[in-house]
Amino acid sequence: MTVHHHTIRVRYGESDQMGVAHHAAYVSWFEECRIEMMRSLGSSYRDLESQGVLMPVVELKVRYRRSLCFDDLASFATTAHSTGPSRIVFTTVVSHGEEVCAEASVTVAATTRDGRPQRIPAALVSVLARQPADAPAPRTG
Amino acid sequence: MTVHHHTIRVRYGESDQMGVAHHAAYVSWFEECRIEMMRSLGSSYRDLESQGVLMPVVELKVRYRRSLCFDDLASFATTAHSTGPSRIVFTTVVSHGEEVCAEASVTVAATTRDGRPQRIPAALVSVLARQPADAPAPRTG
Amino acid sequence: MTVHHHTIRVRYGESDQMGVAHHAAYVSWFEECRIEMMRSLGSSYRDLESQGVLMPVVELKVRYRRSLCFDDLASFATTAHSTGPSRIVFTTVVSHGEEVCAEASVTVAATTRDGRPQRIPAALVSVLARQPADAPAPRTG
Amino acid sequence: MTVHHHTIRVRYGESDQMGVAHHAAYVSWFEECRIEMMRSLGSSYRDLESQGVLMPVVELKVRYRRSLCFDDLASFATTAHSTGPSRIVFTTVVSHGEEVCAEASVTVAATTRDGRPQRIPAALVSVLARQPADAPAPRTG
Repeated sequence: MTVHHHTIRVRYGESDQMGVAHHAAYVSWFEECRIEMMRSLGSSYRDLESQGVLMPVVELKVRYRRSLCFDDLASFATTAHSTGPSRIVFTTVVSHGEEVCAEASVTVAATTRDGRPQRIPAALVSVLARQPADAPAPRTG
Repeated sequence: MTVHHHTIRVRYGESDQMGVAHHAAYVSWFEECRIEMMRSLGSSYRDLESQGVLMPVVELKVRYRRSLCFDDLASFATTAHSTGPSRIVFTTVVSHGEEVCAEASVTVAATTRDGRPQRIPAALVSVLARQPADAPAPRTG
Repeated sequence: MTVHHHTIRVRYGESDQMGVAHHAAYVSWFEECRIEMMRSLGSSYRDLESQGVLMPVVELKVRYRRSLCFDDLASFATTAHSTGPSRIVFTTVVSHGEEVCAEASVTVAATTRDGRPQRIPAALVSVLARQPADAPAPRTG
Repeated sequence: MTVHHHTIRVRYGESDQMGVAHHAAYVSWFEECRIEMMRSLGSSYRDLESQGVLMPVVELKVRYRRSLCFDDLASFATTAHSTGPSRIVFTTVVSHGEEVCAEASVTVAATTRDGRPQRIPAALVSVLARQPADAPAPRTG
């Protein structure tokens, strides 16, 4: 199973008055992880969109375990598997040092620009096929 | 069961290049709904924080069904129930006209400023107690 | 000179670890003010865009004087004047109670979808024409 | 004069329905540039804050020249000079390939946690002293 590793430094504006990264900031980080994972697998999401393949988020689950703070360099480990001809589930574990900070599962659906479902491009499927069918269910479920 | 109703107009900057509201924007909207619901129940979250009661999000689940667009005036119906002495689950249904656009379930934990669990303030619990124990499970689960 | 008044409550996620509204949040508030001002003048920006008239921001100036905090209900007073056939300058003063918190001047340019300048729609110009030619220069200049 | 170079890839959520990076996104990018510049000069802003030196933004000027798009890898060149015992002006030019996309000038004020002005820490001043007194005025003025 391919695991994509990525790091993101928490921006100042992503902190809130609790003094920690606001929970909504993680959602954009997970998106960055998906896009970088696809890039690393040879599939530019930018190009996919320009070819008419959109991948809107249809489901989002996040479990927050420990806070991240401004300036922390967070580590993200992302895996992906398809759950049908037009859906991919990306699972990301966020950690800082030895600590797991959050876990997320984000489902995207391949659609046309009109919003109708379409098949995930073959090139991307072939890469995702490396994932076992019995990928562990996201712990956030 | 108390249902809190709220409306939010989608900001331009909340749109993305798909031409719809970005999925991360909803997360801040749900937060606004929780805070407005608490205010309507006589409990200012701002005051709670200044009294040392923080309510960080520990779990987030969102199911996106139909897109919202810039300038749409979205309707939010929020309910809440406690699931233990220090946890509240807020469930929000977002709609536009007759259409349900998204459903969310957000769990917050009452903590001290140091991050240790503490009991939800009695005044807030007594209000939440109006919720039936068998509140419907969030459909996003 | 038409002054458009608007109020916005500071969202939790717009606070940062200084305990005040982050300076980038104001930029989206000014955008909301421009759009609401245009709506109040009978000109929906959403409709303008769908008719092919885009108004990207070409210049932004903000002077921050006093902080706003989460949950503050901020007041915005916005005026507008055209500075050529395709440019409008919106000037906004943000206040809370008796205090001025910030002043901004935002210049937008009417363009086609391809980014070429175009004339501001006549209906909008006629409204803006109510502004004196000698509108006070934004104090943030 | 020290010029700090930095690159940031435009996030999907930073795009808007014009299909380009939203103008508010730049404001957070400039902040990231300031913080990375300070780090490169041996001065962690995180540490400064924990020592009681805050640097809120008091003035912001941005001139937008060409759009940036999702997935663009933008280049940022930042310089800084002090304009008094407690103020620093950071000037940033954003480019993509050969094109200048935006120019910004951001003034920060060193303050105590209570918001009162204080002197910029000597270690930081000594680094900024490398800047000529006659640094070019930001072109966005």
